[in-house]
Amino acid sequence: MTINIEKLPREKVFRDPIHNYIHVQHKVILDLINTKEFQRLRRVKQLGTSSFTFQGAEHSRFTHCMGVYEITRLICDNFQRNYPSVTDDDGLWNDDERIVALCAALLHDLGHGPYSHAFEHIFNTDHEQWTQQIITSPETEINQVLRQVSSDFPEKVASVIAKTYENKQVVQMISSQIDADRMDYLLRDAYFTGTKYGMFDLTRILRVMRPYKGGIAFDANGMHAVEDYVLSRFQMYQQVYFHPVSRGMEVVLTKLLRRAKDLYEHNQMNGFEMPSLLVPFFENRVNINDYLALDDGILNTYFTLWLDYPDEILKDLSYKFLTRKPFKSAQYTEETQDKLPKLADIVEVAGFDKQYYTSTNTSYDLPYDVYNPRKHKSRTQIEIMQNDGSLIELSTVSRLVNALTGKILGDERFYFPKAMLEEHSDDIFSEEYTKFQKHIYNDMII
Amino acid sequence: MTINIEKLPREKVFRDPIHNYIHVQHKVILDLINTKEFQRLRRVKQLGTSSFTFQGAEHSRFTHCMGVYEITRLICDNFQRNYPSVTDDDGLWNDDERIVALCAALLHDLGHGPYSHAFEHIFNTDHEQWTQQIITSPETEINQVLRQVSSDFPEKVASVIAKTYENKQVVQMISSQIDADRMDYLLRDAYFTGTKYGMFDLTRILRVMRPYKGGIAFDANGMHAVEDYVLSRFQMYQQVYFHPVSRGMEVVLTKLLRRAKDLYEHNQMNGFEMPSLLVPFFENRVNINDYLALDDGILNTYFTLWLDYPDEILKDLSYKFLTRKPFKSAQYTEETQDKLPKLADIVEVAGFDKQYYTSTNTSYDLPYDVYNPRKHKSRTQIEIMQNDGSLIELSTVSRLVNALTGKILGDERFYFPKAMLEEHSDDIFSEEYTKFQKHIYNDMII
Amino acid sequence: MTINIEKLPREKVFRDPIHNYIHVQHKVILDLINTKEFQRLRRVKQLGTSSFTFQGAEHSRFTHCMGVYEITRLICDNFQRNYPSVTDDDGLWNDDERIVALCAALLHDLGHGPYSHAFEHIFNTDHEQWTQQIITSPETEINQVLRQVSSDFPEKVASVIAKTYENKQVVQMISSQIDADRMDYLLRDAYFTGTKYGMFDLTRILRVMRPYKGGIAFDANGMHAVEDYVLSRFQMYQQVYFHPVSRGMEVVLTKLLRRAKDLYEHNQMNGFEMPSLLVPFFENRVNINDYLALDDGILNTYFTLWLDYPDEILKDLSYKFLTRKPFKSAQYTEETQDKLPKLADIVEVAGFDKQYYTSTNTSYDLPYDVYNPRKHKSRTQIEIMQNDGSLIELSTVSRLVNALTGKILGDERFYFPKAMLEEHSDDIFSEEYTKFQKHIYNDMII
Amino acid sequence: MTINIEKLPREKVFRDPIHNYIHVQHKVILDLINTKEFQRLRRVKQLGTSSFTFQGAEHSRFTHCMGVYEITRLICDNFQRNYPSVTDDDGLWNDDERIVALCAALLHDLGHGPYSHAFEHIFNTDHEQWTQQIITSPETEINQVLRQVSSDFPEKVASVIAKTYENKQVVQMISSQIDADRMDYLLRDAYFTGTKYGMFDLTRILRVMRPYKGGIAFDANGMHAVEDYVLSRFQMYQQVYFHPVSRGMEVVLTKLLRRAKDLYEHNQMNGFEMPSLLVPFFENRVNINDYLALDDGILNTYFTLWLDYPDEILKDLSYKFLTRKPFKSAQYTEETQDKLPKLADIVEVAGFDKQYYTSTNTSYDLPYDVYNPRKHKSRTQIEIMQNDGSLIELSTVSRLVNALTGKILGDERFYFPKAMLEEHSDDIFSEEYTKFQKHIYNDMII
Repeated sequence: MTINIEKLPREKVFRDPIHNYIHVQHKVILDLINTKEFQRLRRVKQLGTSSFTFQGAEHSRFTHCMGVYEITRLICDNFQRNYPSVTDDDGLWNDDERIVALCAALLHDLGHGPYSHAFEHIFNTDHEQWTQQIITSPETEINQVLRQVSSDFPEKVASVIAKTYENKQVVQMISSQIDADRMDYLLRDAYFTGTKYGMFDLTRILRVMRPYKGGIAFDANGMHAVEDYVLSRFQMYQQVYFHPVSRGMEVVLTKLLRRAKDLYEHNQMNGFEMPSLLVPFFENRVNINDYLALDDGILNTYFTLWLDYPDEILKDLSYKFLTRKPFKSAQYTEETQDKLPKLADIVEVAGFDKQYYTSTNTSYDLPYDVYNPRKHKSRTQIEIMQNDGSLIELSTVSRLVNALTGKILGDERFYFPKAMLEEHSDDIFSEEYTKFQKHIYNDMII
Repeated sequence: MTINIEKLPREKVFRDPIHNYIHVQHKVILDLINTKEFQRLRRVKQLGTSSFTFQGAEHSRFTHCMGVYEITRLICDNFQRNYPSVTDDDGLWNDDERIVALCAALLHDLGHGPYSHAFEHIFNTDHEQWTQQIITSPETEINQVLRQVSSDFPEKVASVIAKTYENKQVVQMISSQIDADRMDYLLRDAYFTGTKYGMFDLTRILRVMRPYKGGIAFDANGMHAVEDYVLSRFQMYQQVYFHPVSRGMEVVLTKLLRRAKDLYEHNQMNGFEMPSLLVPFFENRVNINDYLALDDGILNTYFTLWLDYPDEILKDLSYKFLTRKPFKSAQYTEETQDKLPKLADIVEVAGFDKQYYTSTNTSYDLPYDVYNPRKHKSRTQIEIMQNDGSLIELSTVSRLVNALTGKILGDERFYFPKAMLEEHSDDIFSEEYTKFQKHIYNDMII
Repeated sequence: MTINIEKLPREKVFRDPIHNYIHVQHKVILDLINTKEFQRLRRVKQLGTSSFTFQGAEHSRFTHCMGVYEITRLICDNFQRNYPSVTDDDGLWNDDERIVALCAALLHDLGHGPYSHAFEHIFNTDHEQWTQQIITSPETEINQVLRQVSSDFPEKVASVIAKTYENKQVVQMISSQIDADRMDYLLRDAYFTGTKYGMFDLTRILRVMRPYKGGIAFDANGMHAVEDYVLSRFQMYQQVYFHPVSRGMEVVLTKLLRRAKDLYEHNQMNGFEMPSLLVPFFENRVNINDYLALDDGILNTYFTLWLDYPDEILKDLSYKFLTRKPFKSAQYTEETQDKLPKLADIVEVAGFDKQYYTSTNTSYDLPYDVYNPRKHKSRTQIEIMQNDGSLIELSTVSRLVNALTGKILGDERFYFPKAMLEEHSDDIFSEEYTKFQKHIYNDMII
Repeated sequence: MTINIEKLPREKVFRDPIHNYIHVQHKVILDLINTKEFQRLRRVKQLGTSSFTFQGAEHSRFTHCMGVYEITRLICDNFQRNYPSVTDDDGLWNDDERIVALCAALLHDLGHGPYSHAFEHIFNTDHEQWTQQIITSPETEINQVLRQVSSDFPEKVASVIAKTYENKQVVQMISSQIDADRMDYLLRDAYFTGTKYGMFDLTRILRVMRPYKGGIAFDANGMHAVEDYVLSRFQMYQQVYFHPVSRGMEVVLTKLLRRAKDLYEHNQMNGFEMPSLLVPFFENRVNINDYLALDDGILNTYFTLWLDYPDEILKDLSYKFLTRKPFKSAQYTEETQDKLPKLADIVEVAGFDKQYYTSTNTSYDLPYDVYNPRKHKSRTQIEIMQNDGSLIELSTVSRLVNALTGKILGDERFYFPKAMLEEHSDDIFSEEYTKFQKHIYNDMII
């Protein structure tokens, strides 16, 4: 790759609470940061509805992307200092790969829309595909900056994100079971939520990472730091990302967007101020500019306008979302799953349209897995390198990781209006509430 | 005060990165938090345009208000444990005052609009007056919750914020030169910006605070902790709040809002999608609902729409704001101030409307002051209590605080487009740029 | 218990890096801290030879004991605020138990000698028995202070440490699988070593602890915080407490003390300055004053004097200990154990007395266990309390804890002089070294 | 300098709570760390008697020296990356100077004896001269390691410590008003005491340091970080290093050592176990081995033995020191100074030998000073480099530093037995106590 990479005359730094400073050394990185597509990420929260539970978690995808870039830069520095490639094919680090790694790290989340999951669910979009499209479409500022490196550079960067790039070290830096993306978000989300579960020893992990032919491995003496990282990640999922209250707000949001879409499709929005930036989504004819126009604040703006719409459901759900009134929930299992329709019916009888006021919501995580060639999306397993250079897979040496390996852990919940749990003695529906409440015990559906 | 304060059956906690947990013990506090007016504060950033410089500073006024509440609660707990009033007029702490103090602490920033300074400047609003109005207007949810305590309770809370409340201890908890408000924002802004300047020893200051007849004093053995707080505050102003780049973004925003207002007043917006939520502001007929409808995201939404308006200035300034393209600046002094019109003229000749593309911006702070009855808005000085109970004013015992006392420290800057500092050799205006650049040296106008 | 507990007129605080401040509120606690037996703990390092590996870990048992006291105080405060006993036998917290809990917490490590394990091993002492003896012997200052509470108070405190005290809540605060002792040392050792493995969310655990008839349980919603604590503890053992280099120094120390004892017993110390404070130990006639005279510095003083003794082994081991020259090691297993005598013989042939220059050293931990009435020293299992008040044992709800439950995890190593691993080409013993080195591969004996 | 510097095959790291890891890259550094003279520093506390006030401050000079080395290494890395010398005399950084800088940094405190000030005072030793002597004496292991670099290398290293080395950049790294030594001790002492006053932004200061012909300067945009450092240093002196209680213990120690010396000189120790390692000091015939044999623990060992000596004063002061019973104190001024003899007389009448039971103790600091060629030991002032390369002295641009410049700040105290402040109603000396107490008011002598 004989690409022309211009260095900045003097390194530019961005102050960051997680990495202290983020160091930008190449003009292309600075130019990418300054594009409108990348700046948009300032207006999309990293954790969506989680800030309704963990009030400090108001950080944006912008800061996360900067952090992933910085960790990737530190990995490249370490590889270049300690494991520089001497001959082709020696499995060591070729520093010509640095710039593609840095760009892919910085841009990996570019395609995230507002409040990711709920939005993607209703409008059937995929942030990973949008990321690649923003990188490769000639109309974006991102693409124009990348093309200044070389005409095929945008595709290269996109292929790293698609995991089809030939250099596996670069791919695994950005996406594997222990990559710059996950390392940054665990530390960052732990810092901003104020929980401690996501803390692990980044410095030590960076020290024990090393390139080999098949990608990236970890020195045997760093095994416990890697184990600690896997446990931290597991605990963040259990404690933060799966929190039932955040999901209660996500359900409100999902139902709210669905109601808006339904109203639009039935021409019930006519006569009111149109949510013009959402119309392409309602009409299923979204182009890249439509997509990039959106952010969290734009959705909130329409919710504010909808407080004055006459539709009671739209109004109520908008109010619930803007004023943090989550749906309540209870866990269900395979055995109690068949009670859900009955419960939804009670909710309906109590006066709530069950289509918009009940929902299931499931959160699953596979904390760690070994490589399985028969799986569709198999994971790259974490390899530990012994003194003699041989590799062993992490779960064979860590009792704790082994306990999590290959197990899909999840939490399945049924969501409904808070009113269903309250006392309503003099209400015409009071009997329904009592009936409903008999089915909830110790946070479970029985 | 024989008010009826309902305690929650079990204390409710909110996790917070600064105070670890925020403890809510009264139903009225929980109800206030759940109002729509208070939840709106989640959508207004605490530091406005500072997050364009310190990327982590994306925290909202919501979390700050929760923090001020928590510090006030800790002060009350300490006063109640160590200095409970026994007789009327003994100058010690009467715990009946707790609830008014807690409510005022929680609500003190309720009236903040989006991007405070720029917005207030263009639309001539005052967040302190709005705060009082939201508390006392019968139409708000806040007012309805407060009235459940007693019919005159909203006015009491408002009077604490207006500093006219009779109990000076309560007033000084919420607003004085060392109050719960400032203590929370220094720690919080330091945490989220990732700087260390705002750190001070909160635990120690809380330990040495004590009530006396005239308000709140500090034990002599805590003098250095108080001194450290004053220095921290000074340094945060110099390093964070006055940062020239954040102000460069604030100037862009101010000019952008002015352009929009001017266009609206000259009917140049007709034919395009109207910024309906801003119209009452353009027309100078804002009611409390109009005011409370706004937040940061709503302004950003209109800026996004304006990217497609035909007015070049509106479009360009919207783009600059959304993609973080700050105006550049240089310091001026009383001596060089008379050069500014000339410099603005050069900017105009170079092709920029000087009304929207040049500006002065001044940041002043009075880090600490002693009480001066002849001043209009005189400050409550910080009193140190000696072993024998006598008071001495802080700056008489601290050489460092003395060096800052009564001095208004500021930074006066002239802002202009970045292009004015660049090289334009083959440009028809290149001569103008050269002329302009001769006036800037070592970040100063000469 | 109608004991007379004098409160201090004003709470006294001790600044501490882990708990910020340690709050002393009773005169008896302050008096205990000021005894000579308690002050001696300033001169005994908490982690013994670990500071040779983790240089920051130079903290003393004094600070740890203060920390255990503080955590116990916080638990009592929480129990008293939220779960005060109303009737005898309601299983809630009787605050009359506070003072015995606080004293036991403060004093629980009083009997630790210098460099615990090595010293106990050679001189056959037991720090737990010494702790009880120091508390109950009328000749100590500790005993005199405790007797001022009541004549049977020393025995009560000692019985808490012996786990025979009738109130199981008090016993479990001080010693159980999740007690104030372990919580303090994990946080403290993590802080001073500079590792992060021992960090867990103390505030949250304190919030979810609650008394019940059988002792102490944890609210179901705090299960993950408890799980995180168990994992932190496991990781500290693996990463810090079992570190092979610290153990290499411990082996040096053990052999050094043994050599000294052997020389004394064979009258080989005559003619030199006697280690007078060690003589009672050499002669196996130790009284309580002899025991309490010792600390780390006294051992080091004798090692310094022994640098001038004529015995080459005593001299060399003293030098090795004072200048941090650990023995090297390799892991062995049940299968390779029978090679050790042969390896020791090689060491002997290479010129080292194998009695003093080879050793096995094994570190075992049982990270967590359920209660087993058939075991000699069965553990109190960790109980999780569900919403309906029923208890379930931790490992039944935590996959991770389950993976560790009941498993004794350890590391068995063979220690030998560093010279055995070096190249000695022109040495008369060079053949022996080569032979030895063939038996070590990937840090294992083969 | 054509010296032969051997790099380690692989960098060795030491974990450290302040710098996370300390990176050793040269064999000579590792060999120096492993000498017996350097390992001795593990047994000398960094802050002497301060740990009696700040219990966590038990860290040794060993860890501090490692930290100074690490900061120096970071400065060299920064200078080499950003300001490498191209021609002789360009005032930039010549990386051949690195190794002498690193060795001087590591070894700068080698000559510290136990409990520095008290010991130096009584035995008239000077740790800076001992440091140079240990480096240049052929009999030390340190010297032998250094000579392997080159025969004149020990003298070079010693000359850096003596500030006579020709390269001013190297000298100022190790000793100036903002050097690696002070930066490490402020951060380290803040961490271990658990105070926050000593925290400042090391990363930022390292970024803005730059070499110039006259030594080291700081970029203008880092002025506030430098200012913050000066304030941190000032506050640590006021709050930690000058703490009256630590000094009360230092006075006990000083008097104790003086009493021992006096007894020895008057042959009053005969018949008891001799403090053999102190005898050369008593007899004023100390050689380098005598000096290097000492550490904190050895003094404590003799104090333990002296508890059984018949001299009441020696016994009592030993007990006071070992069990933390500090002398009490009150401030005096120039005006009240002449009362001290009278107060000492009262102490004597009350039954205490005033020679051993009263003392003055003064703590002075010059927080910052500008260069003054007429002063004997003039300081190198802190220079700020403006955009155009010109230098301005720090206090001319910082109002806060200016307030401290050239001012010697101190605290003068008179120390006496605690009994003098207590009530003694039925004591034969009770009148004396009352008389004494009339002279103390608000912590001042009046």
